[in-house]
Amino acid sequence: MALPGYLLGDLWERPSFVKEVLAAQEELKSWTRGSSIAIAFGGLGVDEHKTGEDGRIRKYIAFYLVQNGEYIGPENGPYPFSIKTLLPNYREFDDGRHFCRASRLAEELDISVKDLIAPHTLSVRGKEWSLGPLLCEDSWSQDYSLDPTSILVEKGIDILLNLSSSPFTKGKSERRDRLFKAQAVQGDCPIFYCNATGIQNNGKTIYTFDGDSCVYNRSGERAQELPLFEQGATTVDLGSLPKPVNKSVDDMEVLYKAIRFGTASFLEQTGISKVVIGASGGIDSALVAAIYADILPRESLLLINMPSRFNTSTTVNAAKDLAKRLGCLYGSVEIESSVNLTQQQLDGFVVKTESGEPLELELKLSSFVMENVQARDRSGRILAAISAAFGGAFTCNANKSETSVGYSTLYGDHAGFLANISDLWKGEVYGLSKYMNEKKGREIIPQSILDVKPTAELSDQQNPEQNQGDPFFYPYHDALFRCWVEDWNRKSPEEVLESYMNGDLAQWFDLEETVLLELFPTDEDFVNDLERWWRCYAGMGVAKRIQAPPILAVSRRAYGFDQRDSQTKVLWTKAYLELKEKLLFKG
Amino acid sequence: MALPGYLLGDLWERPSFVKEVLAAQEELKSWTRGSSIAIAFGGLGVDEHKTGEDGRIRKYIAFYLVQNGEYIGPENGPYPFSIKTLLPNYREFDDGRHFCRASRLAEELDISVKDLIAPHTLSVRGKEWSLGPLLCEDSWSQDYSLDPTSILVEKGIDILLNLSSSPFTKGKSERRDRLFKAQAVQGDCPIFYCNATGIQNNGKTIYTFDGDSCVYNRSGERAQELPLFEQGATTVDLGSLPKPVNKSVDDMEVLYKAIRFGTASFLEQTGISKVVIGASGGIDSALVAAIYADILPRESLLLINMPSRFNTSTTVNAAKDLAKRLGCLYGSVEIESSVNLTQQQLDGFVVKTESGEPLELELKLSSFVMENVQARDRSGRILAAISAAFGGAFTCNANKSETSVGYSTLYGDHAGFLANISDLWKGEVYGLSKYMNEKKGREIIPQSILDVKPTAELSDQQNPEQNQGDPFFYPYHDALFRCWVEDWNRKSPEEVLESYMNGDLAQWFDLEETVLLELFPTDEDFVNDLERWWRCYAGMGVAKRIQAPPILAVSRRAYGFDQRDSQTKVLWTKAYLELKEKLLFKG
Repeated sequence: MALPGYLLGDLWERPSFVKEVLAAQEELKSWTRGSSIAIAFGGLGVDEHKTGEDGRIRKYIAFYLVQNGEYIGPENGPYPFSIKTLLPNYREFDDGRHFCRASRLAEELDISVKDLIAPHTLSVRGKEWSLGPLLCEDSWSQDYSLDPTSILVEKGIDILLNLSSSPFTKGKSERRDRLFKAQAVQGDCPIFYCNATGIQNNGKTIYTFDGDSCVYNRSGERAQELPLFEQGATTVDLGSLPKPVNKSVDDMEVLYKAIRFGTASFLEQTGISKVVIGASGGIDSALVAAIYADILPRESLLLINMPSRFNTSTTVNAAKDLAKRLGCLYGSVEIESSVNLTQQQLDGFVVKTESGEPLELELKLSSFVMENVQARDRSGRILAAISAAFGGAFTCNANKSETSVGYSTLYGDHAGFLANISDLWKGEVYGLSKYMNEKKGREIIPQSILDVKPTAELSDQQNPEQNQGDPFFYPYHDALFRCWVEDWNRKSPEEVLESYMNGDLAQWFDLEETVLLELFPTDEDFVNDLERWWRCYAGMGVAKRIQAPPILAVSRRAYGFDQRDSQTKVLWTKAYLELKEKLLFKG
Repeated sequence: MALPGYLLGDLWERPSFVKEVLAAQEELKSWTRGSSIAIAFGGLGVDEHKTGEDGRIRKYIAFYLVQNGEYIGPENGPYPFSIKTLLPNYREFDDGRHFCRASRLAEELDISVKDLIAPHTLSVRGKEWSLGPLLCEDSWSQDYSLDPTSILVEKGIDILLNLSSSPFTKGKSERRDRLFKAQAVQGDCPIFYCNATGIQNNGKTIYTFDGDSCVYNRSGERAQELPLFEQGATTVDLGSLPKPVNKSVDDMEVLYKAIRFGTASFLEQTGISKVVIGASGGIDSALVAAIYADILPRESLLLINMPSRFNTSTTVNAAKDLAKRLGCLYGSVEIESSVNLTQQQLDGFVVKTESGEPLELELKLSSFVMENVQARDRSGRILAAISAAFGGAFTCNANKSETSVGYSTLYGDHAGFLANISDLWKGEVYGLSKYMNEKKGREIIPQSILDVKPTAELSDQQNPEQNQGDPFFYPYHDALFRCWVEDWNRKSPEEVLESYMNGDLAQWFDLEETVLLELFPTDEDFVNDLERWWRCYAGMGVAKRIQAPPILAVSRRAYGFDQRDSQTKVLWTKAYLELKEKLLFKG
């Protein structure tokens, strides 16, 4: 999908867009006329005489080979292009929504899908090359009933060529290397892997495409490669492939590249060139600020600290110190007067009926309500107005731990134009912050921010100077929330409680055995904590995620269009309730 | 999916949930032991020895028949249940994400899918009945390569039985009647149609299930039926089916039922029992208030009017009058003091750098920024705090016309816990408001609200008493936005401009020929308006919809999980640009 892009929501349903894409492909093809260059590209295949299962014009994800202004189709194929055979339908992928399956075409033609998978023959200077066409998922066949690579190898190919729109995920590059190594050896041929760069989104979730294009030699080693997260071109001489690349990967470096690239690309795509960040003096907003400072000129980045009487000098000073270290614009706007005005206006406010039997009610703003009033005053009032006046947009600094359980205020700290660290667990936020300081060779994020206890500072009970912090012990709670979201077979309180009762939970969560005992002196403490957060995760957390800003995805499971939520009643399985009964009322 | 529900996001990925569902089905089955009642139900089929294309345990959407504590499977089937054959993958449907296709199983067993489609034989009092199992989409085969009904009819059945989780859409019931009429005649047999009631959601979009279960006789007429949007039970005597039901449908009545039912069910499901509505004196909030007043007791509904200096006495009085007519609680909170405070604090606010070469910038709040400040003050400050103090939540009153082009303020009037009229075009908002007054036999929505010019009243230029309203002529703009969203082959400016140039746009949009000339004196006016709204629809409109509250779906295409957006650069096709060139620069 080199020309149109791939994750485009329902744009594919517009005939005018389909026409536009086909015209662009024709133009690309025409460029090869009179040239010695042949082009293989992923694109859109259309059969205007057939329809898809949605009743619209039949569309395929297509592998094209063009030379001398002509399409070179697969051997004995019904179309001048090959068809993507494996259509993924998990995570953010939903190919079958717009594109027709090879199996349906095979059925119509009364042939086998295997007959549709065939090499394209390319003549170069009198020599014929048999190219094995693969589109992205086609090479990842382990869970499908068909393996396109084996079929192509059987039919005899000189080169396997995988054209991909494969979004970046932590650790995927290594998995891909292992996969293609086996396939190169199996086919005794080199594999060209050519992947998209850039970002694409499905509304709620932004994906980065890391490129990482490379050539694997017959032994499956990376012989030549293009840089990560950059467009590029290279010439490959199959007669003398260079010696294998010794790829050494620093996970934190790659993660940072992905986030920086995704953030910068999103700014470019949406035309946002100025950014405002609410800087609390805590770690999340500090990391977000450091990332934007690495992208934007200093005059385009504005940090705003918004203290109330609950904010300590520790964090207020840290926010200013951060701005100083980043060199960007800074301002401090107090929220006390506005929050007081809201309290005066609404605390004790009387509402009444205007007809029928008289009814009257006096409204009271509890301290919990006032916490949220503060958070909304900061984002919904100040940051929204300042960013508009500044000519830009303001960020959402929520991390994945908070996003999981809705530990944030809607229209408050949950707001923003992009949530670029919402797919990082709190532990990763610290890790990436330390990495940035190391990379820059100085404390761009002040040590005081790395050291201070994380807290929202919305009440007297959240004073970091008195070591009062968020109600999380992150090494434990990150692991807990992670298994609910990122495990392929996603866990629930049932499996967690079972593991706790079996005595292997610390091992599962990679914690010291003593940690659980310190955190939860009694079984009841353990259960209460587990139920508290499950209720948040499956309850208000969902409602808040539905209205969250787009999230930049880097993990194997990001919220939004990847891990899809439904607002349901919070479910406690019978098995969970029985385990709990057994644990707490065993006597 | 009678027990678990159907549209459940990615809940299906939890092994604990799958286990829970299977256990509940076993229990249901056990209830038939020693009873004379057999039960057919839609549920979850699992093959724990196989996996799906997502690598997780193999799941099917399954048709079960149980009698005497035993499953009665289909003839010669591999499982004790039948499998849903047609898996829809359009609109909100995405069956293939979690459930395995019959074609994959057929391939593994080396048989044809047709062999998997077979009757279940039920013995009742010595007589054998051949039941044709159909699950929802199975009966809607027109765009698929396979028609399960024909296969069952060929194999010989006495009754077709379609178990559905089919969400309500305007006009779907009539389409279904036509469809089943043809199939009953084709099979010369009665059809039992049994559909779910209730609501389900995929996060962004809430669907109502209207039940509407009925029995079609051999001639395809509705012989017996259950009420809309209600659970129910009835006994059908096949020996003497009653005379056909004469179904007379009032579209507005059904639409109102859907919205009322969906809203009430969502309140119940989320545990929200008190609701606050920002009542502007305009038609949208008035309709929303009238709907909630029809659901909640008067002491649980609170209308808040929030005037500024821009609000006219016309709308302020209308809001109070509305509360009087509905008998609910009411209060008025001015926003002037808070908006002034924001202006004082931020207009002229100076931000500067804290290190390096000194940079300083004075922020100015333009009148446009101040419009959004007002909208956010109302929702993000007042309604959010008041609804929390009231112990409830506040509504989003946006209609579909506004939602299409983002004519609303994020964290302002775009906020709320549910957008229950966001799938109604402005014209439908008026229609439904008039219907409610007629139904109640009195003006529960004051005539003044039906008569006043729609406007946001956020500036001196939006004074309804001076006939200054929103920048829409709704009969035209509703039709324009509708063709971008609801046409199955969705339109773009290209087709609209082409139709305008061909002189058949008025006919297409069902308008008087003179309307276009009055609206757009010159071709340039037409193009400017078209481009203005397309830019909004495809640009900021998308960004705002991503953070919108859940939308209650009633149309054939609702925003959210149904019509899926992607944030991209606003696309002008080459064909559009050429048409425009031809129109405007023809000389």
